[in-house]
Amino acid sequence: MAKKPVNSLNTELLSELKAALLEAQNSRSKGVILTSSLPTVFCAGLDIMEMYTTDKTKLTNFWQTLQDTWLTIYSLPIPIATAINGSSPAGGCLFAISTEYRVMVEGKHTIGLNETQLGIVAPKWFRDLYSSTIGHHQAELALLRGSLFKPEKALQLGLVDELAKDKTEAIEKCKKYILFYDNIPSLGRSVTKLDIRNDLIQWMKKNKEADIEKFVTYVQTPKVQAGLKLYIEYLKQKQQ
Amino acid sequence: MAKKPVNSLNTELLSELKAALLEAQNSRSKGVILTSSLPTVFCAGLDIMEMYTTDKTKLTNFWQTLQDTWLTIYSLPIPIATAINGSSPAGGCLFAISTEYRVMVEGKHTIGLNETQLGIVAPKWFRDLYSSTIGHHQAELALLRGSLFKPEKALQLGLVDELAKDKTEAIEKCKKYILFYDNIPSLGRSVTKLDIRNDLIQWMKKNKEADIEKFVTYVQTPKVQAGLKLYIEYLKQKQQ
Amino acid sequence: MAKKPVNSLNTELLSELKAALLEAQNSRSKGVILTSSLPTVFCAGLDIMEMYTTDKTKLTNFWQTLQDTWLTIYSLPIPIATAINGSSPAGGCLFAISTEYRVMVEGKHTIGLNETQLGIVAPKWFRDLYSSTIGHHQAELALLRGSLFKPEKALQLGLVDELAKDKTEAIEKCKKYILFYDNIPSLGRSVTKLDIRNDLIQWMKKNKEADIEKFVTYVQTPKVQAGLKLYIEYLKQKQQ
Repeated sequence: MAKKPVNSLNTELLSELKAALLEAQNSRSKGVILTSSLPTVFCAGLDIMEMYTTDKTKLTNFWQTLQDTWLTIYSLPIPIATAINGSSPAGGCLFAISTEYRVMVEGKHTIGLNETQLGIVAPKWFRDLYSSTIGHHQAELALLRGSLFKPEKALQLGLVDELAKDKTEAIEKCKKYILFYDNIPSLGRSVTKLDIRNDLIQWMKKNKEADIEKFVTYVQTPKVQAGLKLYIEYLKQKQQ
Repeated sequence: MAKKPVNSLNTELLSELKAALLEAQNSRSKGVILTSSLPTVFCAGLDIMEMYTTDKTKLTNFWQTLQDTWLTIYSLPIPIATAINGSSPAGGCLFAISTEYRVMVEGKHTIGLNETQLGIVAPKWFRDLYSSTIGHHQAELALLRGSLFKPEKALQLGLVDELAKDKTEAIEKCKKYILFYDNIPSLGRSVTKLDIRNDLIQWMKKNKEADIEKFVTYVQTPKVQAGLKLYIEYLKQKQQ
Repeated sequence: MAKKPVNSLNTELLSELKAALLEAQNSRSKGVILTSSLPTVFCAGLDIMEMYTTDKTKLTNFWQTLQDTWLTIYSLPIPIATAINGSSPAGGCLFAISTEYRVMVEGKHTIGLNETQLGIVAPKWFRDLYSSTIGHHQAELALLRGSLFKPEKALQLGLVDELAKDKTEAIEKCKKYILFYDNIPSLGRSVTKLDIRNDLIQWMKKNKEADIEKFVTYVQTPKVQAGLKLYIEYLKQKQQ
């Protein structure tokens, strides 16, 4: 991902990401490493500008694209790992925990589903993934608090699998993860992966409409729009 | 809770607890700390005297009140933490793990779902909460053995979140937990909490009758009543 | 289990194991310890020779016997522990994690669901048990990689409950686990166990046919049969 300044996930970037993943899959690539070409941010999460609106069509289109891109990541048959080389809040964290393996670069940046800090609610599929990664009680506490974890704490919780000194080392470790599968028959591996992930994949396929409806209705409420406005102003001040 | 000698949860105390929680919620309190005003016992669990009977109406009324009070604790929208300042077996443990955060005072007292020790069976909702707190395998072992854990072991298992030197420190840590949410928009927080807990809340609402029936039928059996009688005699001897 | 050379689980051994467990249950034994009388292998898992065939009747009979024996282990009302005194891949690991408690002898041998290494797929019930024992994310990684863990790592993951220096000590620790229940009323214990395990037991009872169909269809495919052939040749070379 290389969308300045912070890889915010808007409809365009999501579509491009989905296309790139499908191309890797169809070209029978050995695997995919998700990372950022920006120096301090892995992915700032969903683009707040896409949510700071009451235009139902725009919101629906945005959320549908997110669902489709996520399904592509989560059900990718080939190995996929994430080199987290910077901040990874909200949607950035979601995408990282939707791959198979995470290596995080040491430093000051953080990772976590911090939606409550913005006054919004992480949907069921975000939460289920979080629980299956760090356990139910830790996930509940982290979701309520909107926690963002430093690399050492993320490793301790099991939110990431390894730490690395810099991006180069993170990429190397992701490559090692992927190349391990050279010795594993790919059919058995991909069937196993899709079987393990089948419950959540099927849930999404069956609940796309309801999930969109829930998001669009909640985000359109004046209270939430006012909260997003405040947050955008806070970000603008921070940048000055 | 301040019902001598051991805060046994009978129909009366359960009703009072529920009323107090609803009052805190309606008065838009910042949060609730569940604790005991007794020196060595947090809560001895369900009152065995309420179960040592074959009177169906009494048993039904008791279990229904427990369900309702538990639902109030478990789905309370405002922050709720527990300062466990003494023994916390069975129902005492259930109530602690139904709040969001637990601080346990160091010492000789213990916590755990020890129902099998009394010859009774922890119902599904007790067990599901235990599993989501300490993990499935540890919960299974602890339930089969009726384990009671000392504070250090409870912390290690994730059954409590922090230890404290005394009750004062435990209350302070619970307050700190609650005050953290001053910076989190309350709507997003409460929707997130109820969404995370929705499966078990809905299960209870749909299965109240069946859950009562299961409890009443099992407890009325001569074998279980005989076991409770033995346990009551054991407790009486212990007190002398 | 004492079937040379490696306690491969074929239809015959599975039937004998089931009969022995039912006898222990009916004779009101205090409990069962599952172990191997072979020096270096606990159980090599499912007999590959039973799978290296396209004979539908043979495959169906084999898988049905496995299901029934597994159900007997998993739902045994009396205490059951495993003394893992050697290698315990695939089906060997499945049986160990289907008992209540595992003690593993230290050494070079390993344990794990390594099905992907053989090009086959661990079915849902294998995977669900693995997840409930070591947590969802660790189970997913281990299943994708077909990982085999040494005793120290197995202990750290929670895949086994204790280590022992030799088989004698492992048996002693399993006995201690079983004798603990002398002080627990057996009715409450067995009802608790079957309640905890009820979801997976009911799933199996309802999905026996579909589970057989899935296995038989997958194993019969030329790609899988070719993979098994390669693995058998590899094992033969290894033995020379």
